[in-house]
Amino acid sequence: MVEGYKEVGPSFSREHTQQNPYGPNPADFLSNVGSFQLIESTLREGEQFANAFFSTEKKIEIAKALDDFGVDYIELTSPVASEQSRKDCEAICKLGLKAKILTHIRCHMDDARVAVETGVDGVDVVIGTSQFLRQYSHGKDMNYIAQSAMEVIEFVKSKGIEIRFSSEDSFRSDLVDLLNIYRTVDKIGVNRVGIADTVGCANPRQVYELVRTLKSVVNCDIECHFHNDTGCAIANAYTALEGGAKLIDVSVLGIGERNGITPLGGLMARMIAADRDYVLSKYKVHKLRDIENLVAEAVQVNIPFNNPITGFCAFTHKAGIHAKAILANPSTYEILSPSDFGLTRYIHFANRLTGWNAIKSRVDQLNLHLTDEQCKEVTNKIKKLGDVRQLNIDDVDSIIKDFHADLGTPIVRATSNGLPKVPHVLEGLDESEEKRLKK
Amino acid sequence: MVEGYKEVGPSFSREHTQQNPYGPNPADFLSNVGSFQLIESTLREGEQFANAFFSTEKKIEIAKALDDFGVDYIELTSPVASEQSRKDCEAICKLGLKAKILTHIRCHMDDARVAVETGVDGVDVVIGTSQFLRQYSHGKDMNYIAQSAMEVIEFVKSKGIEIRFSSEDSFRSDLVDLLNIYRTVDKIGVNRVGIADTVGCANPRQVYELVRTLKSVVNCDIECHFHNDTGCAIANAYTALEGGAKLIDVSVLGIGERNGITPLGGLMARMIAADRDYVLSKYKVHKLRDIENLVAEAVQVNIPFNNPITGFCAFTHKAGIHAKAILANPSTYEILSPSDFGLTRYIHFANRLTGWNAIKSRVDQLNLHLTDEQCKEVTNKIKKLGDVRQLNIDDVDSIIKDFHADLGTPIVRATSNGLPKVPHVLEGLDESEEKRLKK
Repeated sequence: MVEGYKEVGPSFSREHTQQNPYGPNPADFLSNVGSFQLIESTLREGEQFANAFFSTEKKIEIAKALDDFGVDYIELTSPVASEQSRKDCEAICKLGLKAKILTHIRCHMDDARVAVETGVDGVDVVIGTSQFLRQYSHGKDMNYIAQSAMEVIEFVKSKGIEIRFSSEDSFRSDLVDLLNIYRTVDKIGVNRVGIADTVGCANPRQVYELVRTLKSVVNCDIECHFHNDTGCAIANAYTALEGGAKLIDVSVLGIGERNGITPLGGLMARMIAADRDYVLSKYKVHKLRDIENLVAEAVQVNIPFNNPITGFCAFTHKAGIHAKAILANPSTYEILSPSDFGLTRYIHFANRLTGWNAIKSRVDQLNLHLTDEQCKEVTNKIKKLGDVRQLNIDDVDSIIKDFHADLGTPIVRATSNGLPKVPHVLEGLDESEEKRLKK
Repeated sequence: MVEGYKEVGPSFSREHTQQNPYGPNPADFLSNVGSFQLIESTLREGEQFANAFFSTEKKIEIAKALDDFGVDYIELTSPVASEQSRKDCEAICKLGLKAKILTHIRCHMDDARVAVETGVDGVDVVIGTSQFLRQYSHGKDMNYIAQSAMEVIEFVKSKGIEIRFSSEDSFRSDLVDLLNIYRTVDKIGVNRVGIADTVGCANPRQVYELVRTLKSVVNCDIECHFHNDTGCAIANAYTALEGGAKLIDVSVLGIGERNGITPLGGLMARMIAADRDYVLSKYKVHKLRDIENLVAEAVQVNIPFNNPITGFCAFTHKAGIHAKAILANPSTYEILSPSDFGLTRYIHFANRLTGWNAIKSRVDQLNLHLTDEQCKEVTNKIKKLGDVRQLNIDDVDSIIKDFHADLGTPIVRATSNGLPKVPHVLEGLDESEEKRLKK
């Protein structure tokens, strides 16, 4: 489908200087940009994606792949959601994975009693704290919320497993209510408190402020969960870590309610730009593509064309000016190294925006010899045809080879329009294209 | 492909209180969140997308659609890129659109002379200022850059049209160099200076800081251009506006070099959450879907499944707890109103995560009458089948109708497993599914 690429090869050198402008900000003294953890929620939040129906076997396959990737936690659908959900939860707990297994429940003793019996390493409790959710969802006030939270937390702790307490829709909750309940549950000894942008509209500096404020109130770790309705889920996760949050909820391709949450791959792109050594030491990012393909197939979606890292053109360079610099040094237009992800970069040279440096590189690949001036001349011919229609590699190669052959021919074959005489290139044109070309 | 949805209807009421937590931050006194402008670059940056080849006719169709949408500027490929690029630029200038037409050139007199003859309303000049680009791209020092900038700017201004000067790869450029050259060009009287995250790795707070700093140095407007390699292009645009930038470069679906730039639709989602009145007063956001389809077709890509606003499930609610609250008040789990975009919301009820509120709503739609207790009972039957395989609306409707019919039958027909006796639902099962269901 997409033609006209040339593989340049995996050579890539990154400068690891102290002054990486994309690295952690030294002024963020609480930052966890270089020490974050992942709570992978494809098997919980991801199950809420419109297309998702995971069989037991598929859940196990996904859990194993995520474990192998190196995620710190795997979060599963509540065991009270359905009978099979409970059985699947038990089955995954028995796999003996390195990742800790969590399940996600409402702040109810009914749910908690079932959850602790599944064999999970921890329970993630959530309750709506915004006025919207208090009014239209569970209908409870903050006192009631605090009391049920305490009961559930004490119960889960008594079983010797981890407990997280999260508010829902945190950014539309009253700040004083929020800080109050977080301090209360922190004192009882939760392992983590969670901030959730359930409706997906928090913005990065707002996130930073809330995390910083909360960090001054609690001693436990802070986990963050960001929906992506306004496209800020990756950035919000990053500023949360800058502000002192420790754990980020992700799912493969971001699948979840509506258009989902912070995607695992996108967050890896963001974090590897900030602290490559940490990311590569913990996570097998070269397995990202396989994991994305596994989940995409399971939920019957295509990898988005513009997906970070694995989108089909994430490492494709097209404009002549970009191609020239990339050929000289990939760092000029690439902050991520495709080879980190088991991928390669391409220079797209078969188009009218191409430049002579890209064409010269193709000439070299074809093992032909042309001077710079000759490369510029043949580039002009390529751009002319590229003005008329979409080109593919064959077109360009034919033009180059014909140009090269002409150089070796003592008789100069006249062409009236300065275009290459490559019959099969012109054959591809329809009548109107041919007319425009001749004009 | 995606089944089991129910349309709930377009009723939506947003609370427009002063305290919109997603609105502009009152502390950002230079903020342009409520007064930003769009430079639409599908026909420039978007032409650098791997798949893009726009014929003259397609360019005109896209330009007209963007103009109708209400974008402030339309940016076109450099007229020196190819002969047809120049002709297309002239043709679009002659359309008499409301949007101002710009073209984007290197900081060269050769390019500038051609650009000003095309009939554009303004010229966007760009030059690489980072050490990377100075070394591997044009090979010039800052003095040379400043001198050519001045020459080009004076020339373009003498023609009475707008001029923008932008650095390239601004976040890897030396800050003092940057501020120096921006101040220089501001004094000569450019209309805008541009900050460009050419490699796509700036983070939001870093953007805010740079824009704030630059704002203290220049009097002209600030334009920002963000690539999306690490998924922060929308968020970076937002914090740039918070910091005092005025104009954001966008393209339809974000198409551009590599995985592209800030997408028009995603930015609309972000901005409408912050200042709905401003966005609706300026931009025809209900035409977004058509414009995205037009461009997606032209470059042969699918709309990403998780695209903001127009992704197929951006307004789909699945988990029982979400569905319940959405039915009571859409604002509980929606910060964007689908009706603003000519879209509708769906409650996905045909799955094992469903809840009785969603099912009750479906029962009402079917014009059947069940008590809450009966709805809970039939919900359990639906969840049981949903544990075995993916459901569709027909499955659920059959279970509900059968359940309802049974209620009207005086003889209680025994079922050994508590499951509904709906032959055609069970017919859909393969052998192993049937076995698991019976178990």
